Amino acid sequence: MRPELIDIVLVNTSHPGNIGAVARAMKNMGLARLTLVAPRQYPDERAVSRATHAADLLQAARVVPDLDSALADAQFVVGTSARGRRIPWPVQDPRRCAARMAAATEAGQRVAVLFGREDRGLSNEELNRCNLHLHIPSHDAYSSLNLAMAVQIVCYELRMLAVGDSLPGAETAEWDTPFSTQDNMERFYAHLEETLAAIGFLNPAAPRQLMPRLRRLYGRVRLDEMELNILRGILTATDEQVERAGGPVFGTERAGGEP
Amino acid sequence: MRPELIDIVLVNTSHPGNIGAVARAMKNMGLARLTLVAPRQYPDERAVSRATHAADLLQAARVVPDLDSALADAQFVVGTSARGRRIPWPVQDPRRCAARMAAATEAGQRVAVLFGREDRGLSNEELNRCNLHLHIPSHDAYSSLNLAMAVQIVCYELRMLAVGDSLPGAETAEWDTPFSTQDNMERFYAHLEETLAAIGFLNPAAPRQLMPRLRRLYGRVRLDEMELNILRGILTATDEQVERAGGPVFGTERAGGEP
Repeated sequence: MRPELIDIVLVNTSHPGNIGAVARAMKNMGLARLTLVAPRQYPDERAVSRATHAADLLQAARVVPDLDSALADAQFVVGTSARGRRIPWPVQDPRRCAARMAAATEAGQRVAVLFGREDRGLSNEELNRCNLHLHIPSHDAYSSLNLAMAVQIVCYELRMLAVGDSLPGAETAEWDTPFSTQDNMERFYAHLEETLAAIGFLNPAAPRQLMPRLRRLYGRVRLDEMELNILRGILTATDEQVERAGGPVFGTERAGGEP
Repeated sequence: MRPELIDIVLVNTSHPGNIGAVARAMKNMGLARLTLVAPRQYPDERAVSRATHAADLLQAARVVPDLDSALADAQFVVGTSARGRRIPWPVQDPRRCAARMAAATEAGQRVAVLFGREDRGLSNEELNRCNLHLHIPSHDAYSSLNLAMAVQIVCYELRMLAVGDSLPGAETAEWDTPFSTQDNMERFYAHLEETLAAIGFLNPAAPRQLMPRLRRLYGRVRLDEMELNILRGILTATDEQVERAGGPVFGTERAGGEP
């Protein structure tokens, strides 16, 4: 995925605030090339205001008089579209479309993504110039997205491909402590069982499902070593109270074993 | 995926326009339950204006004084978070997080998704009440998304799960004419080859890679029956010109065969 080859093209945008919001959405998602085809009111203070820290992107935007100028050097053109055209066109959702765009950039191709007017989108003539149509699967109850929201979704899908497997969201990523080993988990469970018996909460002669349930709980949560040390410390402190109180209510095999 | 079990919870939102934009983003994506925790300015005309056709959703929104009231009956709580907390929490990207939320709703659980203040998000205390943290993998150059944009992305991921395999974006969906059968394609290629020979464009004694290239082209584009009929019609019309001109330049085996 090469974001620098992707050009977001806004056609005849009416509201300058939307242009600013698009600039912010793009920069948030790591895109930088913005082209404005005959915007109705531009430049405009409202665009700068909504762009906030993406004003540099507005500054660098190309403003062109017509779609021909915008698409002159594009090699793969995607048009965003509502459903229900008279002549169907290959149409894909944002995810599949982003994958196609990313693949095109990896082949060194320049990609343009067209977004139409706030009130009526792209014309049929404009859509007919596209290699592929992108449709956001909105709900029938209210299918028309705000322009900048539509751009945000497409840029987000591209971003997800750019970050790939280095997703900060992968579980365990950026954890500050190693997760506990199974050996240490087993020592913990043994200690836990002993202490629960010592305090009379678990009767070794009739343990029921207590330990399996606790194993399920701690297994699911995945303890890290620091958390495990904390829990072991609590058990040891409890054991000391049991000793002070005259010894365990119930003993287990492990009694007197390693700490 | 049961969207009716998902509650979007906005905590201490400053700008009423953002609340309206959130309502629109939600309705566009098929969600309906909105809870506002101590909004700074609400109700407000700017919220209604930005919501446009989602004013019904604003009307139905719960307004509560604190997070306890908002989360009282929630069974799975997700908090949106920027990176870099002192104590890491299980964090996932919007896609994985949406899958977890959808699975929870399918098990009949009520899900709440918390979005924090425009300027500083959710507090650590608020985040500590969440089962899972959601992080949108924004770009380091400008990582702070507009509130309504963040809601849009999360609702979009939920929507993608709701539409599932019935995605309108699946290729071939909603096509108005059946795609051609391989039989008909083969008849077309035979006719094409004959006509190309007849007009002297293809020499059957030295065909080179012409037909393979044409097969690759038409195979890639996937012709529907109507398109195929059009192409066959063009070939037949060409054949008639060849007859008028005194017969084919080159003949092929198929000459005089079925139309």
